[in-house]
Amino acid sequence: MSTTIPSTAITQILADYVVHAKPQDLPADVRKAATCTFLNWTGCAVGSAHHETLDVAIAALAPFSGPGVASVLGRKERLDPLHAALMNGISSHVFDFDDTHLRTVIHPAGPVASALLAYAEYKPVNGIDFINALALGIEVECRIGNAVYPEHYDVGWHITGTTGVFGAAAAIGKLLGLDTQRMTWALGLAATQPVGLREMFGTMTKSFHPGRAAQNGFTAALLAEKGYTSSDQGIEAKRGWANVLSTKHDYAEITDGLGSRYELLTNSYKPFACGIVIHPAIDGCIQLRNAHGLKPEDVRSVELRVHYLVLELTGKKTPRTGLEGKFSVYHAAAMALLEGAGGEPQFSDQAVIDPNVIALRDRITAIVDDKIAPDEVRIMLTLNNGKVIEQHVLHAIGSIARPMTERDLEAKFRGLVDGILGTKRSKELLDICWQLETLSDASKIAEAGRL
Amino acid sequence: MSTTIPSTAITQILADYVVHAKPQDLPADVRKAATCTFLNWTGCAVGSAHHETLDVAIAALAPFSGPGVASVLGRKERLDPLHAALMNGISSHVFDFDDTHLRTVIHPAGPVASALLAYAEYKPVNGIDFINALALGIEVECRIGNAVYPEHYDVGWHITGTTGVFGAAAAIGKLLGLDTQRMTWALGLAATQPVGLREMFGTMTKSFHPGRAAQNGFTAALLAEKGYTSSDQGIEAKRGWANVLSTKHDYAEITDGLGSRYELLTNSYKPFACGIVIHPAIDGCIQLRNAHGLKPEDVRSVELRVHYLVLELTGKKTPRTGLEGKFSVYHAAAMALLEGAGGEPQFSDQAVIDPNVIALRDRITAIVDDKIAPDEVRIMLTLNNGKVIEQHVLHAIGSIARPMTERDLEAKFRGLVDGILGTKRSKELLDICWQLETLSDASKIAEAGRL
Repeated sequence: MSTTIPSTAITQILADYVVHAKPQDLPADVRKAATCTFLNWTGCAVGSAHHETLDVAIAALAPFSGPGVASVLGRKERLDPLHAALMNGISSHVFDFDDTHLRTVIHPAGPVASALLAYAEYKPVNGIDFINALALGIEVECRIGNAVYPEHYDVGWHITGTTGVFGAAAAIGKLLGLDTQRMTWALGLAATQPVGLREMFGTMTKSFHPGRAAQNGFTAALLAEKGYTSSDQGIEAKRGWANVLSTKHDYAEITDGLGSRYELLTNSYKPFACGIVIHPAIDGCIQLRNAHGLKPEDVRSVELRVHYLVLELTGKKTPRTGLEGKFSVYHAAAMALLEGAGGEPQFSDQAVIDPNVIALRDRITAIVDDKIAPDEVRIMLTLNNGKVIEQHVLHAIGSIARPMTERDLEAKFRGLVDGILGTKRSKELLDICWQLETLSDASKIAEAGRL
Repeated sequence: MSTTIPSTAITQILADYVVHAKPQDLPADVRKAATCTFLNWTGCAVGSAHHETLDVAIAALAPFSGPGVASVLGRKERLDPLHAALMNGISSHVFDFDDTHLRTVIHPAGPVASALLAYAEYKPVNGIDFINALALGIEVECRIGNAVYPEHYDVGWHITGTTGVFGAAAAIGKLLGLDTQRMTWALGLAATQPVGLREMFGTMTKSFHPGRAAQNGFTAALLAEKGYTSSDQGIEAKRGWANVLSTKHDYAEITDGLGSRYELLTNSYKPFACGIVIHPAIDGCIQLRNAHGLKPEDVRSVELRVHYLVLELTGKKTPRTGLEGKFSVYHAAAMALLEGAGGEPQFSDQAVIDPNVIALRDRITAIVDDKIAPDEVRIMLTLNNGKVIEQHVLHAIGSIARPMTERDLEAKFRGLVDGILGTKRSKELLDICWQLETLSDASKIAEAGRL
């Protein structure tokens, strides 16, 4: 850090760190986590590419796009980099299947990776610089999130959008080679453009948040590069971001251990395309099905002992749409027993009205148990022959304690991408994502991921 | 209003009002106020067009512009309508000389007029529909501002940017012909994109706020038009805009008297290019100069009796830059006595270091007087011959009680525009602004105002 920056100058300290952090400073496990995060993000963005949310957003805004140098993953349209960042950011969040920084519930990749991939098609960037910028952007947004969570989230901000702007600004600013003053301005310009109210959850606007955060942060860095001035204390000033948008602001979370502790190492990937609280139940039901070769007609009843949040958030008994199915632990458990999966197909509009699903769902009960942790479940399944089989999931797959393996990530990726790009191109895209660190030109990913 | 909308559905009530309000419903004084507001905005936007702030913003973002169908006032560049809205919104606020809704300190025209003029070059719109959309947009932003002011402003939000998004969304949504559902979504998409922290004051980012608000609101309306869904309670929901961004929210301010009371009638125009608290002193000094044919060498001393905010905000004794000059009542009063004006030329970097200005400035004192109101000043000027002349300004020019006349507005306009477009084109632009209501194509204004 430059010795001229006082210890209370939070924005400048953070800017200075980003400016001076080198790719070779990144530990191998952080580089690996960045690659996994990027791969997972790519799968999510391609997988949702033909969702109505994207169709509508592109129909509305493509007429205003600049020169179409950047790709929308999984689609044919080419847009200017700012609009491409918006669209890929939207797409990556539509299924709510993207990565989660569990401590803050930030989805870190959306704002940062969306901006970076669009940038890579605008100006050449090699794989290791791309990974460095991705890791730094995620570090910036998660640290700022740590400083204000949970008060900032509780009051109603969608923290992915509000902190994501900083992440995108830092990442793009890094690739633009901003000096500390200009990086500080970029963060100031990010601070003044927060995106996202939680009120928008359940509508297309939720996915707009990571996309717009990517676009706003990208814009902030471009303006700062040319000398557009902003505050030097965008985060910590009396009327700066943290004070205006949160009652809590623990600035040590932002500045302590920069370069020695990485939030990216606590990023997680969802195995199932729904809210994280139902994941233990889905995980347990899949394990039961696979261990016992269960057939639905053999099942008399299923009892789930769950954490209280499961019923508070996902206690819907009779979902009527696929989206409502994501808020029904009964539907999710039935699908897991029937199909051994919890992906987007298991939450289709068709799935929730399938008589076979409904018949099984109605034999499932859930009981809140104070002794059950959020990532835990106990399942007691009674067969028609009277036999009882049990399953205890102490830590659900996808939790920090039991992360998805690389093979799990690959299976998830293929499940999302095969249907959009075809199996051959899906495999090629998967391979090139794994190779990100060694690519001489990161835009090859966009080339491999578009139609 | 549609009878199906409950009285607690604030966003929907507001949306429904905007959807159904017709040009012929607008009283003549509101139409006239809209024209004056637009004319004043146009002058400000043209006047600042060659400021460094614009140069930098355009250099940074023009490479990302879509088809250049829309003008940047006072300049040669053509940008897509969203970027043009951004640039004109920035330009109109650079001198801090634009209109002020005194109750909330919102600068209403910036976000709304900037979006509308860009729209008019994208799709044809006649003058009366343009005025109707302008009046409705301003009504929406000022009413939402009234509902949360002053708490929302006090906590640190730049209220022009945060409420301006709604105004721009409503105005563009009106021209797009959105139905109540889509207008409601447009307001939801506006709610989730607030712009502007007060921490940015004193930097280029302050002017970014009305511009980005115009761009965000325009974007919101475009997305909603194509069916991009959002909350139906973007303003009033528990985690909606008002609850998240303010501790105060008096929703009656938004819904009471819609269509019968117009905030536009309380809009004001600044006669001088600086913070409103110094206006009485400038006004009084100009009156003294004109009444007595004062020469600076005849002035021994000047004593100003002022409201306490004058010294709290503008008590700078020795400004070193033009911008600092705007925060010096001494400099402002000296220039008013010397040149009989308080425009942008009186706050140039040259003006504040001019020895003649400094010599007079140093003979000016200011004393806080509890009996003086914010828009009032008492001036006691002692001549070298010992004679004392006094001036009492009860309500400064530009206040609600003593608004600028049309002739004042014209003089201000010409002072801003002549130097950019030349006197002939400046006069033509002024004339066409006055004719706005009868224009068959509002884009004629952009044509007349660009280089």
